[in-house]
Parts: sequence; structure tokens; C-alpha cells
Amino acid sequence: MIDFKSGYFTMKEEDAILYAETMLNFFDAGAELSCKEIGDGNLNYVFRVVDNNTGKSIIIKQAGPVARISDEFKLSTDRNRIEYEILKLQNDLAPGLVPKVYKYDPIMSCCVMEDLSDHVIMRKALMAYNQFPRFAEDITTFMVNTLLLTSDVVMGHKEKKELVKSFINPELCEITEDLVYTEPFIDHPRNDVFPPTKAFAETALWSDKNLLLETAKLKFEFMQNAQSLLHGDLHTGSIFIREDATKVIDPEFAFYGPAGYDVGNVIANLIFAYMHADATISEAGKKEEYKAWLTATIVEIIDLFKRKFLEAWQEKATEAVSRYTGFDSFYLEGIIRDTSAVTGLELCRRVLGIAHVKDITAIPDENKRARAEKICLAAGKRFILERADIQAGADFVRVLQEVEAMLWPSVFDHFNN
Amino acid sequence: MIDFKSGYFTMKEEDAILYAETMLNFFDAGAELSCKEIGDGNLNYVFRVVDNNTGKSIIIKQAGPVARISDEFKLSTDRNRIEYEILKLQNDLAPGLVPKVYKYDPIMSCCVMEDLSDHVIMRKALMAYNQFPRFAEDITTFMVNTLLLTSDVVMGHKEKKELVKSFINPELCEITEDLVYTEPFIDHPRNDVFPPTKAFAETALWSDKNLLLETAKLKFEFMQNAQSLLHGDLHTGSIFIREDATKVIDPEFAFYGPAGYDVGNVIANLIFAYMHADATISEAGKKEEYKAWLTATIVEIIDLFKRKFLEAWQEKATEAVSRYTGFDSFYLEGIIRDTSAVTGLELCRRVLGIAHVKDITAIPDENKRARAEKICLAAGKRFILERADIQAGADFVRVLQEVEAMLWPSVFDHFNN
Repeated sequence: MIDFKSGYFTMKEEDAILYAETMLNFFDAGAELSCKEIGDGNLNYVFRVVDNNTGKSIIIKQAGPVARISDEFKLSTDRNRIEYEILKLQNDLAPGLVPKVYKYDPIMSCCVMEDLSDHVIMRKALMAYNQFPRFAEDITTFMVNTLLLTSDVVMGHKEKKELVKSFINPELCEITEDLVYTEPFIDHPRNDVFPPTKAFAETALWSDKNLLLETAKLKFEFMQNAQSLLHGDLHTGSIFIREDATKVIDPEFAFYGPAGYDVGNVIANLIFAYMHADATISEAGKKEEYKAWLTATIVEIIDLFKRKFLEAWQEKATEAVSRYTGFDSFYLEGIIRDTSAVTGLELCRRVLGIAHVKDITAIPDENKRARAEKICLAAGKRFILERADIQAGADFVRVLQEVEAMLWPSVFDHFNN
Repeated sequence: MIDFKSGYFTMKEEDAILYAETMLNFFDAGAELSCKEIGDGNLNYVFRVVDNNTGKSIIIKQAGPVARISDEFKLSTDRNRIEYEILKLQNDLAPGLVPKVYKYDPIMSCCVMEDLSDHVIMRKALMAYNQFPRFAEDITTFMVNTLLLTSDVVMGHKEKKELVKSFINPELCEITEDLVYTEPFIDHPRNDVFPPTKAFAETALWSDKNLLLETAKLKFEFMQNAQSLLHGDLHTGSIFIREDATKVIDPEFAFYGPAGYDVGNVIANLIFAYMHADATISEAGKKEEYKAWLTATIVEIIDLFKRKFLEAWQEKATEAVSRYTGFDSFYLEGIIRDTSAVTGLELCRRVLGIAHVKDITAIPDENKRARAEKICLAAGKRFILERADIQAGADFVRVLQEVEAMLWPSVFDHFNN
């Protein structure tokens, strides 16, 4: 008989069934359970356990002892506690926008949560050209509520410091510090560069000392600025979505950092979807319509985030000095500046670094993929360098489209079309 | 028989003797111990236990259950653990510049440390017009070593995050957030304003919305920016000094914050000594000579801090991006800008807030005291508002002396002289 109480081991599908039967009080007596491991992330095993009689289901998510992304990153399984605790907190702050969690097991390093299999991963849905009219509304509510309400503007400062302590996350932060803020901007052995893009990376990024300096400033900002309790990995692969619902998942990178980090990740990943649509939709009208939905969504997210942020500030700020004239705008401008910078960092690192996105790698035509990558890099660089001047939703789209207009498809691309 | 192991109680002098006899292995058999409580701070009891036969002595410092500063601030006794741990760490980083610690007792909330009674408290010595030629050299070594070596520039980022966690200090930080960053800049009931200064405070500070906005920015910087492990209360009352030695004591406010906080506190408290000398030395030549030593010391501290900081950076930086061209200067400029701001905050809060300094309150002539206070406030305001332009040691002295030149002694003062 397998014992789940005497020590950690990596579960297989049959262990997850036994775990559900013996450790949880979720399924009815007589349930006929089946299980499938459905994880496609890099760090965890995700078991979906279903009662074949009723269709009732649950997710058991177990931290692997070693990050799957690379054997070089050894991770403690404490990240599962972080995930459990933050999901509970996020559900208080932004009800209905994260999965419900039922249990955390520190021995097996797993947590048990709501099954969202009736949702789809947003990245996949965007790659299938689906539109989600609720998304801007939902994701801005999620971000304003989780970012502002955990900050010193709203939260009591002692309580906030206890949360800072509880969510110190050295190993996951190190991954971000290396893979987002450092390696993509130098010719690092761990990078994974698409060969047709390499010369552009060398010219436009790696030889630009000014860009390097700005990435250093941003890296220290990321390491030092305990502004808000971040999700920490808010790309479109961390979002389960339906037409009528948005659920943010996988907050294991959570820690106190600069609020713009989350917003920038959302924007950059919508830009990846935009580049994917641009390179893969053949019918011009359909392509333009889908790209227009994405740019409208980017504009809406930034502008709605700003409006809701200031409204929530007015309503909920408890810190006396936050009511001083002009401080709310000053603070929000800093977040949008960081948003622009992180948009740029994410655009560059997903192209050059070790962890790519399917939106780009799935572009079958090599020339089109190279052009998409170069647009990401050139726009990314501008989002970093020009961050002080990028404040409205329209500014984000303007930078993207200016770069797009300058990097025309090559003659060879036209020939292929 | 008193039992030190079953629970906390506030010790009296006779308890401290018994503690030394039964809990420490420090004094020889046959020692004839006497004890005196010598604390003059607001938070702790400080027992000096001496063997009358040999002169050998030791300090037992116990955290009081309630801060003496005011019954409104209730403090957990965890600050004594913080003090013990940081003194050990500071002694590793800056050997010989802090007292040695021998023991921490979590039940009695006390720590046992080197007796420095052959030193004097620097504030008192400065009020007696003593000069300390080693001070600039020693305090800059202390600050560069404790501030740079605990930052992400030098320390491994995981190790640094563990220290951030260990030194989260919610209660002591709240005192600073309230008493330094908030109350002095509004007409707050807890302020303690010298009546002849009040009208000036109202006109120059409390009605200036722009100044308020800047204090809000600085308060959030203090709450969010986990840059360096600070002493957190580095005024001249926290420094034991002799001609040949400098010892920094009382680090119970330690936490990860902006490095300029410590440097600014040192500068502001030298300015208080300067104002004290200006108002109390009657012989012109002696007055000018002592003021000149203080301004030279301020210049030397800033310029030496900068030079040593960059040298230590070159020698010890481990973070790869910290080697990017220009980043060291950018980072150091930020620290000096914060130093200027904190110099200004400390100058204002010690005049208007609840916790005054003797340098100012001991000025017997009311007009001279009022003038000294107004100079502190006017200079303090400029150190805050002009912080982006204050970078060299000479800039600090220039602002002080420009304000001094504008606020002439009143006719009444001349009449009194």
C-alpha cells in the first residue's frame, strides 16, 4: 500500500487516483476514477482525476523535484505552498478569476484545485484566431485587484510586510532574473536563437551598450522593488479562458515585485498572438480583422487598467500620503513605464532566450518567422528604451505598428506568397 | 530564586547581576559584580555589569515590552534578535566597527555584548565641540561595507532574499514611516513643535503641496526598495566614539531599504552638531574652526563614501549586469540622491516631530534655537526638493550655507550678543 504521509515521491497517474481516493473527501462513494497527466509546463505534474460515472473532476498539481525546463534549475518544492496560498489570496481579491483550491499537502508537495478543463489555454485559442470579448475587462480587474490591493497604498504596512516575507521566492525569481533580464541581451550559451534571426540580434541588441545598461537598471528594479504581490508569470499560457470566463492559473512565480511586470507580460503575449496571426492567416480581410481585435484589446487593457486603478485608489487607498495631490498619477505612470519595459523584455527573451512561445515557433514559413522575430526584437528594444514616453494604450500599438511598417516582408516572402 | 528560563520579565539592576552570574560564563569566580542601568534610548534597558575587583565589564541589553518613546508604539521584543543577528553580520562585513556580541536570549529578549563605556556617545562629544579625525574614514568604511556587500551587486541573490526575509521589521519600520516620512510634514497632533518655529513650519513646509508630494514618493521608496541591509537609525546617538575608534551601535531598526537612508542620517546629524556649535560657541574664531571641521567632515564623508563604494564595486561585484558600462555610476547617483532626501527628512523631523535631538533642544537662547530650527527646515526642504542636483560633498555644504546666509540672526539676536 502506498503511503502518502511518510515522504515525497513523484506521483504517476495511478498514484494520483489513489491519492484522490484516500486523501481527499471530494468524490462520492462508488466513484470510478480515471486519471491523465495533462501538464505541459516545465515545472510540475498536473493530474486530472475524473469520476467516469458522474463526470465530476479535480486537478492534483504536484511540484516536480527538478524543474523540467532544464536540469540546471533545481527548484525546491516550496513553490507549491506559494501557489496554494496565493490562489487563496487571489480568490479573495479577485473572486472568480482564479481556480478554487481545496487542499495543500506539504509532504507530497501538491495542491488540489478546481478542474478547468472546460476552459482552453488562451495561447492555443489565440493561435486558432479566437476572440474573447470579456478578456480585457476580466484581466484588468484581476490585475488591479491583485496588484493595487496588495500594495502599501491599500494594505496595512505591517500586514504587507508579512506577505512580502511569506512570498519571498528565491529560486523562481532567479529563473526570471537569468532568463528574462540577463541572458537574452548577451550572446549567452543558454540562449536558443533561430539561425535566421541571429545576425539581427547581434546588430540590434547585443552590441547596444545603452540597451544593456537599461536592462541592468530594470533587473535591479525587479530584484529590489517590493511594490505588489505579483502573479509573476502572467503570459497567455497561464490563462484558462472561455467566451464567458477568464481564470488565471499557475502563480508559482508569485512574489513582491514591480506591478508593471504582470501587465507587461500580458501585453507582450498579445503581441506574440498578433505576430502569429500576421504570419499565418492567408486571407487578408480575416488577418486584418483579427489583428485589429488584438490591437484594440491591447489598447483597452492599458486604458482600462489605468482607469480602474485610479478608481480603486480613490475608493480603497488607506495610506494617508497616497491622498496627496498628484501621487496617484505619479505612481501609476511608474507602473505603465515598467509595463512598457517588461513588454520589451518579454518580447526579446521569448525570441532569443531558452523558453520560446509557440505563437512564434509554430510559424511554419522560415522567412515569416524570422520577420516576426525581428519585429518582436525591434519593438521590444523600443519598449525598453522609450518606456518613459509610453503611457497610453495607443502608444503600445503605435510602437508595434511603426516597427512592423519598417520591417517589410522581404522580396523572398512576396515571391512565396 | 529568580528563573530566567520560564518567561520574559523586565529586569532590574539586581536581576541583571544575577543573570550575569547564572546565565553567562564571562566573569571569573569570586567576581564582585555591580550593575547600573545606563539606557537613555527609548526602547530598551541597558545594564552595565562590572566586576569591581578587576574592572571587567559587560553590557546586557534587554528589549522593553513597550517602546519608551510613547505608549502608542507597542513593539514586539523580536527586535533584540534582529539586533543580535545584525551585529554579528555587521562585524563580519565591517570588522571592529560594531560591538562584539556574545549571546542572545530569546526568552528574556536580551543580548549580551561588549561594554564600550570607554567610548562616548558621539552626539554628546560633538556638543562638547570635540573633533574626531578618524570618523569620516571609519563611518564610510562601515557604510560601504554594510550597504554594498548586502546588496544584489555583491551578494548572491538567493542569500540576499533570505536576509530580506530574516530582517523584515514591521514595527520598527512603522515608527520610521510615521515619525520621519509623514507626521513632520503635516500639522499632526503627535508633533512637538517649538512655538517660535511653528509659523515658519506652516508657511515653508505644511502648506507646500509639492513638498508633500515628494515626501509621499520618498515614503514609498522607503517601504518598497529592498536595496541594502540598513542600520536604520544611524544618527550620532547610535555611534560610540573615541579619537582612535568608532563603534556603531543600536541596529534594532535594521531592515532592507534604500542605502541612502543611512548616509543621510549621518549627514543630517552632523548638521545638527553644526547648528549647535553655531548657536552656542561664543568666541568667533573657535566657532568658525569647529564649524569648518564639521563641514569638512560632511564633504569628506560623501566624497569618500563615493570613492570607496566604486572601488569596492570594482573589486567585489558578482552580479554580471552590474559590470555593464555606466551602471555603477547610475546606481551610486541614486544612493546620493536618496542621501540628500533623507538628510532633508531627518532635518525636518527632528525639529517638528515627536523625537527631537539634544543638539537643538539644548540651545539655551530661544531666538538662536528658533533660527537654528528654521535653518534646518529650510535646508531640509531644499535637500528634499533639489535631491536630483545634489551629488558631491560640496553640494551638501553649499545648500546648508546658502540657507544659513539667507536666515540672518535677527536684530534681537544681535542685541543679545
